[in-house]
Amino acid sequence: MTARLHDPEDRAHARHGMRPLKELMSFNEALRIATNLVHPMDRRETAAIGDALHRVSAEDVRSPIDVPLADRAAMDGYAVVSRDTIPAGKTKPVTLRRIETLYADGVPRERVAPGRCTVVATGSMLPKGADAVVMVEDTESEGGLVKVYSPVRPGENVSRRGEDIARKSLVVRTEEVLTPAKVGALAAIGRARVRVYARPRVAILTTGDEVVPPGKRIRAGQVYDINSHTIASVVRENGGEPVLLGRVPDRLEALHAAFKKAIANDLVVVSGGSSVGEKDIVVDVLRSMGDLLFHGIAVKPGRPTALGRVGGKAVLGMPGNPTSCLSNCYVILAPMLRRIAHLPPHERIVEVPLAKRVVSAIGRVEFHTVRIVEGRAVPAYKESSAITSMAHADGYIEIPANAHLVEKGERVRVTLF
Amino acid sequence: MTARLHDPEDRAHARHGMRPLKELMSFNEALRIATNLVHPMDRRETAAIGDALHRVSAEDVRSPIDVPLADRAAMDGYAVVSRDTIPAGKTKPVTLRRIETLYADGVPRERVAPGRCTVVATGSMLPKGADAVVMVEDTESEGGLVKVYSPVRPGENVSRRGEDIARKSLVVRTEEVLTPAKVGALAAIGRARVRVYARPRVAILTTGDEVVPPGKRIRAGQVYDINSHTIASVVRENGGEPVLLGRVPDRLEALHAAFKKAIANDLVVVSGGSSVGEKDIVVDVLRSMGDLLFHGIAVKPGRPTALGRVGGKAVLGMPGNPTSCLSNCYVILAPMLRRIAHLPPHERIVEVPLAKRVVSAIGRVEFHTVRIVEGRAVPAYKESSAITSMAHADGYIEIPANAHLVEKGERVRVTLF
Repeated sequence: MTARLHDPEDRAHARHGMRPLKELMSFNEALRIATNLVHPMDRRETAAIGDALHRVSAEDVRSPIDVPLADRAAMDGYAVVSRDTIPAGKTKPVTLRRIETLYADGVPRERVAPGRCTVVATGSMLPKGADAVVMVEDTESEGGLVKVYSPVRPGENVSRRGEDIARKSLVVRTEEVLTPAKVGALAAIGRARVRVYARPRVAILTTGDEVVPPGKRIRAGQVYDINSHTIASVVRENGGEPVLLGRVPDRLEALHAAFKKAIANDLVVVSGGSSVGEKDIVVDVLRSMGDLLFHGIAVKPGRPTALGRVGGKAVLGMPGNPTSCLSNCYVILAPMLRRIAHLPPHERIVEVPLAKRVVSAIGRVEFHTVRIVEGRAVPAYKESSAITSMAHADGYIEIPANAHLVEKGERVRVTLF
Repeated sequence: MTARLHDPEDRAHARHGMRPLKELMSFNEALRIATNLVHPMDRRETAAIGDALHRVSAEDVRSPIDVPLADRAAMDGYAVVSRDTIPAGKTKPVTLRRIETLYADGVPRERVAPGRCTVVATGSMLPKGADAVVMVEDTESEGGLVKVYSPVRPGENVSRRGEDIARKSLVVRTEEVLTPAKVGALAAIGRARVRVYARPRVAILTTGDEVVPPGKRIRAGQVYDINSHTIASVVRENGGEPVLLGRVPDRLEALHAAFKKAIANDLVVVSGGSSVGEKDIVVDVLRSMGDLLFHGIAVKPGRPTALGRVGGKAVLGMPGNPTSCLSNCYVILAPMLRRIAHLPPHERIVEVPLAKRVVSAIGRVEFHTVRIVEGRAVPAYKESSAITSMAHADGYIEIPANAHLVEKGERVRVTLF
C-alpha cells in the first residue's frame, strides 16, 4: 500500500499490480472535453434533392427566381379589372363579357379590358389588364356573359409574383437540416441538387479475444459482439456513416496497427479494453500513439470510458459492457458526432412525473433508463449488463452528481431515444 | 340555378358548368375511411442486423442461447468459495491461495477448492467450485497469497447463466421497431439477420401540364414540381419507399394508363387535379377505374382531397397546392402509410402554451403550423400557397371543427414534424 494513493479503489488496484483509474473526471467536464476535441467537418458533397432528406445544407441557397414567377389566380373564377366590380352587389350584379378561358398552365393571349373577363383556374397566370380575381362562387355565367355579385379589391384573390419566395431571398441556410418542407422549398425554386456536408465516417472497433461476431457459434467463455452493432446504430441515427472494422486481437501491436488504419476516418470508437484489468491495452496504445485526455468518468453506467487523440482524430474508448457502451453512445458519442456533422443537439425531451422513487449515488452522474407509461416515467433500469433493459426503455433521465434520490411524482426530463 | 343544390359553393359551380365538390366530409371521417382502406402488409424480407435499424420486425425472435452462456464474473477480483470468506473482516483477513489467472476470454482449467481462489476479470467464466467473486478492492495480494478483507454471499458479483437473456425467451416481437438497443439484443443472441416487413412502395404521380421537374428552366405560367419531392420525403420518414413516376399529361387516357401502372405498388399518391376546375380529371378516372370514397374534406389546408380504390389499391388524390399537399401528407398519408408498414402512430407531441391567439372557421378542422420559440407555440401560418411557411415550422396544431379560436396562453398539443 503506498501513501500517495488516497482513493480506496486505487489503493486496491495498486495492491494487485493493476493500474488504477486516475481520479474520476466529472461527467460534465468529460463531455465538455469530448465535444471540444472534435470540430464541424469541412467535407461537402452534392446530393440530388431526392436524396437530401435529413442531410445538412452546406450552402446558403438563394432563389434564382420569383415564386410564383408571375402574378396568378389564387382561386378558380374570373380575372377582372377590379374597378368594374365596384357597383356589384347581391341583388345588382355587374355583367362582364368572357373573352378567354385559361387552365393552370395556359398563357393568356388576350388583354382584359374594362367590361371584360377571363376564366381562370387556381394557378393560372393573371392576364394583362386584370388586377383581381372574382371567385366563381360570387358569379353566374350565361352564354358569353358573366354576372358578378360581389366587388373585389385590386389584388384580391391574386398571388403576386414573388409573394411566396422573392428572387434572391434565402431559402435554405448553411447548417439547416433538410426537412420535407425544405426539400420542397428547394424544388420550388428549381433546384435539383444541393451541397450538403458529408456524413462523418466513424470507425468502429472492438477488442476482447472473447468477442465473436453474430452468426457464428460461441462456446462458454465467449460472447457475441453487441457493441459494434449498437454503436453503428447510434452513429446512423446521428448523421454518421459507420465503418465496421471488427475485432482487434488483445495485443498492443495489433491495436496499434488497427488505430493507424482507423484514424483515416473522422472519428474512432473502440469498445472493450478500457477497464482496469491487466489486459487493458486501449489506454496504453492511446498514450503511446498520442494523448490520453481522460480515463474514467464519474457516471453510471459508463465509468470506464477513455478519450484520446491520435493523429489529430478523437478516439473514444467505450466500456465493454453493452449497456454502459450504449448509454455512452447516447450521452457522449452522439453529441460529439452531431457536432462533427453540423447537426443541432438532440432535443427530444419530455417532462413527465416519475412513477417510482429512484435512488442514486452521490458523486457521480447517473443515467437511468425509463419507459413512458401513461404519461409517467417508469424506471426500466435492470442492471448494467442487461442490454434488454435498454431494449425496453423509451429514454433516460439524468440524475446529477449531487442528488441522492428523485422522489416519486417529481417531474423529470426524459431524453427520448 | 337548380333547386337541388343547397350549398352556395355548389350552386356557384353548377352555374358555371363546373362540378361541385360533393358535400364536404368531416376530417375525422375521411381519416377513418383512409386508414381503414389500407392494411398492414404481408410482404417480408431478410435484413442483416447492420441494415435493420428502424425496420419493423416480422418475426418473434426467441433466444437460442442463455446470455451469458455460463456463470461469469461481474467484477474484477477473485473467484472464491463464498463459505471461506465468512470470517473475513476489515482487520482480520482470510488468506487464500491463488491457483490460476483468467482473462475475460479464458476458460478455467482448475477447480477452486476451499482455501483457494482464481484471479478473474469482469466477464471471465466462473471456475468450477467457485460460487462468488470478491472485488479486487476488498483484497490484498502478496506473492501467491490473497488476503480477503470482506465476506461475500453465494452468487455475489456473479452474472448467472441466462441472467440477461434466458434461452427461449422472447427478445424481439413481431411489429417491434428495431431501435439500437433491439439491434443490440439481436446481436447478443448471435442473430446476424432478421425477418422484417418490406417497406411499402408508394407510387407518386403529379398532374398538371404546367408542372416542370426541378433542374429545368420554366417560363411564366409554369411551376416546379414541389409535391413529388415533399410526398417522397414524408414517405421516407414514415417507413415507405417512394417510386417517382413523374408528371402525367392532363388527359383521361394518360392518367388511366399511369394509374394502371402505378397500382403495381402498395399505395398511389397523385397530386394536383383534385380541385373543382373543369380540367379535374383525377376524380373522373378514379370513378371510371374503381370506387371514389370521398372528394373534398372539411379541413384547411387540404380541402380538395380525394380518395379512391383502384384494383384493390388505395389512390390518394392530393391538392396541387404545395402546402395543402404537404399538410395532407402529415395528417392523412402518414397514418395510412404507417398502418401499411406496421409502424405505430406518429407520437411526437409536445404540449405548450400558444404565443398568440389563433382564429379558425367553424365547421372544418384547421391545421396551423407553428414554431416552438422559448417553450411557446408561435403560429407560422402564412398562406396556403407558401411552402416557406411549412419550411420554417416545427410542427402543427389541430383546431377542431367546432372551435372558432384558441386564446393566447392556452395549452396546445403540437405534433412535431
